[in-house]
Amino acid sequence: MTNGTEWVAVDWGTSNLRAWGIAADGSVSFAKSSADGMGKLTPDRFGAVLEQLLAPDLPDNAEAMDTLICGMAGARQGWVEAPYLEAPADLGGLAYGAVRPPRASALLAPRILPGVCQKRPGVEDVMRGEETQLLGLGALLPGFSGVTILPGTHSKWAYLSGRRVEQFATAMTGELYELLKTHSVLRLSLGDDDKDEDGRRAGTSTGLALGIDSPQRLASLLFKVRAGALLSGRSPTWSAGFLSGLLIGAEIGGHRDWIAAGQEEIPLIGGATLSAIYAEGLAMIGARGRPVEAAEATLAGLKLARSLG
Amino acid sequence: MTNGTEWVAVDWGTSNLRAWGIAADGSVSFAKSSADGMGKLTPDRFGAVLEQLLAPDLPDNAEAMDTLICGMAGARQGWVEAPYLEAPADLGGLAYGAVRPPRASALLAPRILPGVCQKRPGVEDVMRGEETQLLGLGALLPGFSGVTILPGTHSKWAYLSGRRVEQFATAMTGELYELLKTHSVLRLSLGDDDKDEDGRRAGTSTGLALGIDSPQRLASLLFKVRAGALLSGRSPTWSAGFLSGLLIGAEIGGHRDWIAAGQEEIPLIGGATLSAIYAEGLAMIGARGRPVEAAEATLAGLKLARSLG
Repeated sequence: MTNGTEWVAVDWGTSNLRAWGIAADGSVSFAKSSADGMGKLTPDRFGAVLEQLLAPDLPDNAEAMDTLICGMAGARQGWVEAPYLEAPADLGGLAYGAVRPPRASALLAPRILPGVCQKRPGVEDVMRGEETQLLGLGALLPGFSGVTILPGTHSKWAYLSGRRVEQFATAMTGELYELLKTHSVLRLSLGDDDKDEDGRRAGTSTGLALGIDSPQRLASLLFKVRAGALLSGRSPTWSAGFLSGLLIGAEIGGHRDWIAAGQEEIPLIGGATLSAIYAEGLAMIGARGRPVEAAEATLAGLKLARSLG
Repeated sequence: MTNGTEWVAVDWGTSNLRAWGIAADGSVSFAKSSADGMGKLTPDRFGAVLEQLLAPDLPDNAEAMDTLICGMAGARQGWVEAPYLEAPADLGGLAYGAVRPPRASALLAPRILPGVCQKRPGVEDVMRGEETQLLGLGALLPGFSGVTILPGTHSKWAYLSGRRVEQFATAMTGELYELLKTHSVLRLSLGDDDKDEDGRRAGTSTGLALGIDSPQRLASLLFKVRAGALLSGRSPTWSAGFLSGLLIGAEIGGHRDWIAAGQEEIPLIGGATLSAIYAEGLAMIGARGRPVEAAEATLAGLKLARSLG
């Protein structure tokens, strides 16, 4: 099959794998995804998994296809370790730090982009995948500098000067939500009734306001989920919204000093639902969020990394 | 068997059950414990469990033994619900709020003490068991008023004016530690090597200082456990100490405004190891902790509640 694919862009995270065929004009020739995230694979399996996913869509009789990969595939427990760039870091140089894993097959010539780390004691931090989205942001919003938020399991706050990441921090907001919802005493008060969307939204707004106002009290405010259900008859759906809002509010409130007064818009790179909650929280402190679809940023970043590399 | 037991004091928590026979002179005539916590029992089983535990130690041919119980046995999911007193609350009246469950047997006449709640919106909170320890504190430290901390799975901060609880707050510190250690990505960086007690202590001190300094950043600081292991080669034991210190430090830092400048000592009602970490954290902000053994406070509280009731 011939379809004009010139190279393949891959986002290989902990839980999922997504791939796009890219034609010479930059358009997407095919898109594939699978649940074979890095977390489910041993190093020897990455090559075969990728080949199996891509083979049906690759041109016949071609040379091994250039395949540029970002994300957790480059972690120590991934396919092959792609050592971190250290922040402050020029993201224009991502492709220079790429590592070639042991050859997957005659079909593919994969390269894995590095993550970015921050080594100063007390602010140690790491990212893998988000650096590519941050590079892509520069293509989507030319000339952008300032703070950017990437909401998610491990939310990132990054300060960009053009293509340079000056500093960043990871908040475990999404993972805390899942842990508390699944394993803590709060699970007794939580639910997911999609018929009560209004209740959920009301809970989220209340939680956002409280978290933003008192982020230093997070471990105490969390218990209000339980106490509110016991004493005030809060519904499971309201409580789930409240918990989510509280955690996100505390993240925003705790990083308030990252937001410069002069910044017009704060890009929110993530899914639409989550970004909307962050935007609501930012509005409460007089800031404006600008949602950017995560996959769009990733793809823009992989394209830019390849053209600069 | 006759042993001078006049009544029985019981602390019935979520995970454990402890009971003490009390003689006319206030001395302990026997002590028993079991792992039959409230969390493992259905309402119909409490009576039989308690009878089985106590029967061998009760005097023969006596009237049904007065048995005063505090803790989660009085929760809605417990033996029988003992409705909360509402704070501000005079703990001297605990016994007046006691509820008699359906008769356990001819041997026992049980009464369950109420918990205390706080209903104002935004500060909703509940305690069951700790109110009895707070009452007991007044017997152990006569004339005490001020803030008291009860470190644990759900740490309590309470402000006492003599026997009156003015206000209180629950921090989910201990539960967060267990959740993160067992289920989160941080588990990959944690360990319990009891040969490296120095490493653990060093981690705890570092975490305490960071948490006290920036409690509003808790969800970000947690990720330093992972980043520190990846980038700085922190040992699993150091990291476990760091995580524990961080959570406790953030609890103390977030409640700093509860601590009045004039208070000489802050009682720490809990286990010795945990109280020592809280005392180290309090020292970092110029306050002095005073460890009080939890079981001693519970027993003193049950005795005082009975004599006042």
